[in-house]
Amino acid sequence: MSKKYRVGVIGATGVVGKEIVKILDDRQFPISSLRVFASERSLGQTVEYQGQHIDVEVLSKDNLVDLDFALFSAGSAISKEFCPIAAKNGIVCIDNTSYFRMNDEVPLVVPEVNSDALKDHQNIIANPNCSTAQMMVVLKPILDAVGIDRVVVSTYQSVSGAGSSAINELEDQARANLSGKDLAPNQFSKPIAFNVIPQIDDFLDNGYTKEEMKMINETKKILGDSQIMVTATTVRVPVFVSHCESINIQTKSEISADEIRDLLGRSPGVKVMDQPDTLLFPTPRDAAGKDDVLVGRIRNDLSHPNGIELWCVGDNLRKGAALNAVQIAESLIA
Amino acid sequence: MSKKYRVGVIGATGVVGKEIVKILDDRQFPISSLRVFASERSLGQTVEYQGQHIDVEVLSKDNLVDLDFALFSAGSAISKEFCPIAAKNGIVCIDNTSYFRMNDEVPLVVPEVNSDALKDHQNIIANPNCSTAQMMVVLKPILDAVGIDRVVVSTYQSVSGAGSSAINELEDQARANLSGKDLAPNQFSKPIAFNVIPQIDDFLDNGYTKEEMKMINETKKILGDSQIMVTATTVRVPVFVSHCESINIQTKSEISADEIRDLLGRSPGVKVMDQPDTLLFPTPRDAAGKDDVLVGRIRNDLSHPNGIELWCVGDNLRKGAALNAVQIAESLIA
Repeated sequence: MSKKYRVGVIGATGVVGKEIVKILDDRQFPISSLRVFASERSLGQTVEYQGQHIDVEVLSKDNLVDLDFALFSAGSAISKEFCPIAAKNGIVCIDNTSYFRMNDEVPLVVPEVNSDALKDHQNIIANPNCSTAQMMVVLKPILDAVGIDRVVVSTYQSVSGAGSSAINELEDQARANLSGKDLAPNQFSKPIAFNVIPQIDDFLDNGYTKEEMKMINETKKILGDSQIMVTATTVRVPVFVSHCESINIQTKSEISADEIRDLLGRSPGVKVMDQPDTLLFPTPRDAAGKDDVLVGRIRNDLSHPNGIELWCVGDNLRKGAALNAVQIAESLIA
Repeated sequence: MSKKYRVGVIGATGVVGKEIVKILDDRQFPISSLRVFASERSLGQTVEYQGQHIDVEVLSKDNLVDLDFALFSAGSAISKEFCPIAAKNGIVCIDNTSYFRMNDEVPLVVPEVNSDALKDHQNIIANPNCSTAQMMVVLKPILDAVGIDRVVVSTYQSVSGAGSSAINELEDQARANLSGKDLAPNQFSKPIAFNVIPQIDDFLDNGYTKEEMKMINETKKILGDSQIMVTATTVRVPVFVSHCESINIQTKSEISADEIRDLLGRSPGVKVMDQPDTLLFPTPRDAAGKDDVLVGRIRNDLSHPNGIELWCVGDNLRKGAALNAVQIAESLIA
């Protein structure tokens, strides 16, 4: 019999936590015991896994023991405090928050792209930002084939990236607007229903947001190439699930749109949906619930001899978060 | 007494046509008589102007007479057929469709940018595409100050750009979705409610859409600079009014974000809304009903020494269509 593992999910009642439990089941991750952790607020709740209702445990310094893997998705403050404790207890932590991502001693991994980086881990492994993860599986094959000088990306990000309260806010505001009413924003800085907000996370002194800097810095770390120039504008749109990205890529040497289609068609984690004459291109609805990152609108950039334009869409709760975290665990046990 | 003009609005019962009539009134365009034209479908309807209900006339080859200005917004086929007739009758046609825009004998004008081009008109003047118009008032001051090599733009365009049926489709689909139902798309190729569609207008052989090629070609014509390299990805978002644009600009010489803010703050037709520390940046809701194009998120591009990133939002029915058309007429009588 193959080995089975004791797995804990921290933040199990949140949007991403629930998705992690679902994906562990869907992908038949070899689990001997599953424990689910959350804050006191969630005490008394249960999480369903393989038809069983598992009681939520309140996370504490004392109960992070007797686990092989701990998948964290409960915010940076929780990861900061509890990952080191779990790691010291010999538990491999896969952290979905930004807290450890740029730490030199912590691998930041998209398994299709840089699973090599896992070999030196010290029990803490970081899962990239949602908008970064989906871009990586698209950029990596292009980087390997022709090199990349520069990336200019603009995102169209769904509200589920901001948690379940944000999903409710879009729904409630949309309902109100359709009845001719307005509902003040709470989870977002501006109304999100029938609107677009060019701000995700806090602003920094250089005018970029933290979300934008995550895309810039994490890309260099995951691709292992500090020379790649990246700029990003991250934007929230009134969509429930899936992030879209309009990506302009300057490659080091020329490559045709057909070659890119062929290349990405053979790449892991990517599905090409690109046939303009039959109106085949990906939208958020196409990607929701799917594991693959969908790519379309691939074309040679008319403004640059080595430019490529493309459009990618990924389920931000899956490849952007839960799926990638489970894939990291799968890589480690492979 | 100053001169007054006989004005006709063609397509007066459409979204843009109604906005033209409203703006003629708002801006007190000197009108001696206003006539409103539409297709037979609209016969029996009236259009309100200064408290009067004006009967819709069915457009024909014979009734396009006794006018000084005709503002066309009834589709390319109508403009193709009727603008030349009106022009021959001595009527100055301001055409909101794409039909004449790239015609060398037809000026394509954004008054703040290239009103000079009006001097050689032969009674037909083209109004630019909505997404182009709002970008022009932002690019022109930067072009004049430091030159522009290349522009990479991704748009977030509202449904009103596709007319009143498209507005209804978003509303109906959103209502259905919120009741757990789906409503098949009709005006758009894919569902638009709580979704994003990376396609506006038809696809061309080079993989770009017509809307994207309009932004590329019209920009060069309006700025009078065929050397500016432009690439565009145009995307429909579930917003009723206002288009947003994430614009990456490579200038010929370096310029700081502060200088850009100062420059645009002094430029006609533009309002800078850019104070990250107080969460001041423009969204579609801020621009709807406004004449100015709003600009925020101005920052120096971390990926290029001469790069500028910015975000602009304009009311696509106003600066993107009706307002610009009326401003062209105002320039002509000035």
